[in-house]
Amino acid sequence: MADGSRTTEARRDAVFGRWVVFSPARSRRPTDLKSHNPTTNPSPGPGGADAPKPSCPFCAGRESECAPEIFRVPPGEAPEASPWRIRVIENLYPALRRDLEPPAPRDGEAKEEEEESVPGELVVRGFGFHDVVIETPRHDVRLWDLDAEGVRDVLLAYAARVRQLEEHPTVKYVQVYLMGLLSSIPTSFSVFKNHGASAGASMAHSHSQMLGTPFVPPSVTTRLNCMKEVFEKLGNCSLCEIKSKENLISETPNFSAIVPFAASYPFEIWIIPRQHISYFHEIDQDKALDLGSLLKTMLQKLCKQLNDPPFNFMIHSAPFGLSSSCLPYAHWFLQIVPQLSVVGGFEIGSGCYINPVFPEDAAKILRDLDCS
Amino acid sequence: MADGSRTTEARRDAVFGRWVVFSPARSRRPTDLKSHNPTTNPSPGPGGADAPKPSCPFCAGRESECAPEIFRVPPGEAPEASPWRIRVIENLYPALRRDLEPPAPRDGEAKEEEEESVPGELVVRGFGFHDVVIETPRHDVRLWDLDAEGVRDVLLAYAARVRQLEEHPTVKYVQVYLMGLLSSIPTSFSVFKNHGASAGASMAHSHSQMLGTPFVPPSVTTRLNCMKEVFEKLGNCSLCEIKSKENLISETPNFSAIVPFAASYPFEIWIIPRQHISYFHEIDQDKALDLGSLLKTMLQKLCKQLNDPPFNFMIHSAPFGLSSSCLPYAHWFLQIVPQLSVVGGFEIGSGCYINPVFPEDAAKILRDLDCS
Ligand SMILES: Nc1ncnc2c1ncn2[C@@H]1O[C@H](COP(=O)(O)OP(=O)(O)O[C@H]2O[C@H](CO)[C@@H](O)[C@H](O)[C@H]2O)[C@@H](O)[C@H]1O
Ligand SMILES: Nc1ncnc2c1ncn2[C@@H]1O[C@H](COP(=O)(O)OP(=O)(O)O[C@H]2O[C@H](CO)[C@@H](O)[C@H](O)[C@H]2O)[C@@H](O)[C@H]1O
Repeated sequence: MADGSRTTEARRDAVFGRWVVFSPARSRRPTDLKSHNPTTNPSPGPGGADAPKPSCPFCAGRESECAPEIFRVPPGEAPEASPWRIRVIENLYPALRRDLEPPAPRDGEAKEEEEESVPGELVVRGFGFHDVVIETPRHDVRLWDLDAEGVRDVLLAYAARVRQLEEHPTVKYVQVYLMGLLSSIPTSFSVFKNHGASAGASMAHSHSQMLGTPFVPPSVTTRLNCMKEVFEKLGNCSLCEIKSKENLISETPNFSAIVPFAASYPFEIWIIPRQHISYFHEIDQDKALDLGSLLKTMLQKLCKQLNDPPFNFMIHSAPFGLSSSCLPYAHWFLQIVPQLSVVGGFEIGSGCYINPVFPEDAAKILRDLDCS
Repeated sequence: MADGSRTTEARRDAVFGRWVVFSPARSRRPTDLKSHNPTTNPSPGPGGADAPKPSCPFCAGRESECAPEIFRVPPGEAPEASPWRIRVIENLYPALRRDLEPPAPRDGEAKEEEEESVPGELVVRGFGFHDVVIETPRHDVRLWDLDAEGVRDVLLAYAARVRQLEEHPTVKYVQVYLMGLLSSIPTSFSVFKNHGASAGASMAHSHSQMLGTPFVPPSVTTRLNCMKEVFEKLGNCSLCEIKSKENLISETPNFSAIVPFAASYPFEIWIIPRQHISYFHEIDQDKALDLGSLLKTMLQKLCKQLNDPPFNFMIHSAPFGLSSSCLPYAHWFLQIVPQLSVVGGFEIGSGCYINPVFPEDAAKILRDLDCS
């Protein structure tokens, strides 16, 4: 469908409650400033495609240059050089530190640290977990170069690590002072991948990250509140209700890949379990293979259509401690965001995005693209 | 104050309710991917520093290549070549279109357009305003190269344009369907500036933008809700309460410039009116001069300390139609954000930022920097 056939409109989605402005005219604006280089291929080492890059600590054989290993796939003892396909390691430059005392429950008098300097402001010690998942021992292999079983194993490694964290006693019962009252707040775990410098990646070797925070991040709260509000008013889970064929890219027995109705970014993709499930980390082998295969295909499609763009993906799951089982309004999904342009002051200030590509058009292009 | 003297912590602010992780260790991580070029100096034209750049439509003498003018300073008739210092023009590639029918009030039966495809989803026609403020006729002059009176006039041009929009009948009474009910929602106006390619700017010639939206953007709603909650629980406006000397950079009779307690970005600056005022566009000549002088100093400091970094600034005011006068919890401010790195999947997915520089350290550096 041609650009010109649609006119500018604003849409609000039912998951984040975000407004997005769809404006085909925006893509025609000129520039006299150089834009970013979208090319992000990790360059193969000098020894050819198979050789490790001499300075990359994520390559096989350089395990000793990494922060401690948590586990490897297939299982084996670190730092021994048993062959591995995936390594989950500590981040050497962590945003949050597992060696700090966690913010602990304490009585009203003894709130030394979780103190409010100004009403509504809050400080907690930077306790938390920050891990790196090395998706392959080879420097020149990208996630979607692995076969479906390989991608499945990466997803299962994420899930296994999240389950370990969920069982961690300090993660389970983090309590902080909120507005002067001691509250037990759920903690949260983010799983995400950065690919390419313009998507924030500092390391070229294929990897993802996991961050366990002693608080629920703002977008998670917003998403859960929005989905809960829709559920309470209308009796439906926002993501169970998505049926539009126009936005569908591909479907498997367990998952749908769509361009969401109010995509913030051009060619943004959501992969959604077709069954209502709140927690990503409950995924089993079969579903992980199904998801692995669909994720591989979607990344191949983006790579082909957009010339190996920088991208991020994020797994949006429910925070720990909210409930022991499935929540009627919370439905996990995986969001893939190609980074084709730089956001400006409007987006930073308003949280509202301008997208020049209509989701239905992006979905049709990705649906019709053959990657076999 | 040295990096090593502080340990990782997470802070939540009292304005947006956002969590930010402060982690000095993060700034030491290596990279094997090239990062963005922060240099963003507009290159002077071939005829020397004074000459207009031949292809730049924002330069004096090329007014006919721009979208229609709304007004100029000093006042004069466009397209005549009366000398000007500032021009407010329509954006030639607008995100929202002033020539569309606005979403109009209509009864429950006739909701053709503002229709919900899935419960909670919403569509409105892309009616709105998108203007550009050309801050100087000269291609080689940056906003902070103007004298304080020059910056004042740019601020007064913003305010004058916002007042025009506030009086626009369609902006005043935009109504849409929310969750199946016809509601009258306040509309909102964003004023922002992008400087440098890594801050999203496509044009090098010094300018800012204004976007009037037929909805209140998500961050505006979040900010007002958060400030209202603090006000209701604690009886204080979050921004009136900021007193910390540690975070202060500079003060004038009417404004304070601070690095906020939970700054999302390294060297982020907020300029806050010392008096409680909800709406930026009510600013008068004297206060605009005071603000112009402080804004100029802050931009000079950032330029000197961070080597002319790309940056955005945003004016956070209250939306139209909420109230006819000052709201006890809403306090406008101007946020300046240098763009020193690219955000990744964690920030995009969680809305939570990782900042390697403690606000108190950034404030001290900026406070001690001499730009006279
Ligand atoms: N030898 C070693 N052993 C173990 N770990 C090592 C290591 N060498 C490097 N690392 C870690 O490996 C990670 C690589 O991560 P990415 O390339 O995905 O992005 P990074 O976290 O640097 O920042 C991007 O993602 C974050 C989170 O979204 C954003 O804050 C940031 O702005 C953006 O650039 C880094 O976090 C680094 O600390
Ligand atoms: N001859 C002419 N007459 C009138 N107007 C003209 C014109 N030629 C160009 N323009 C307009 O001038 C504006 C210049 O704006 P900026 O350089 O601040 O960033 P831009 O809006 O391109 O995008 C950045 O800011 C927006 C909003 O934050 C983000 O969506 C985006 O990703 C980011 O790159 C553009 O909006 C353009 O449409």
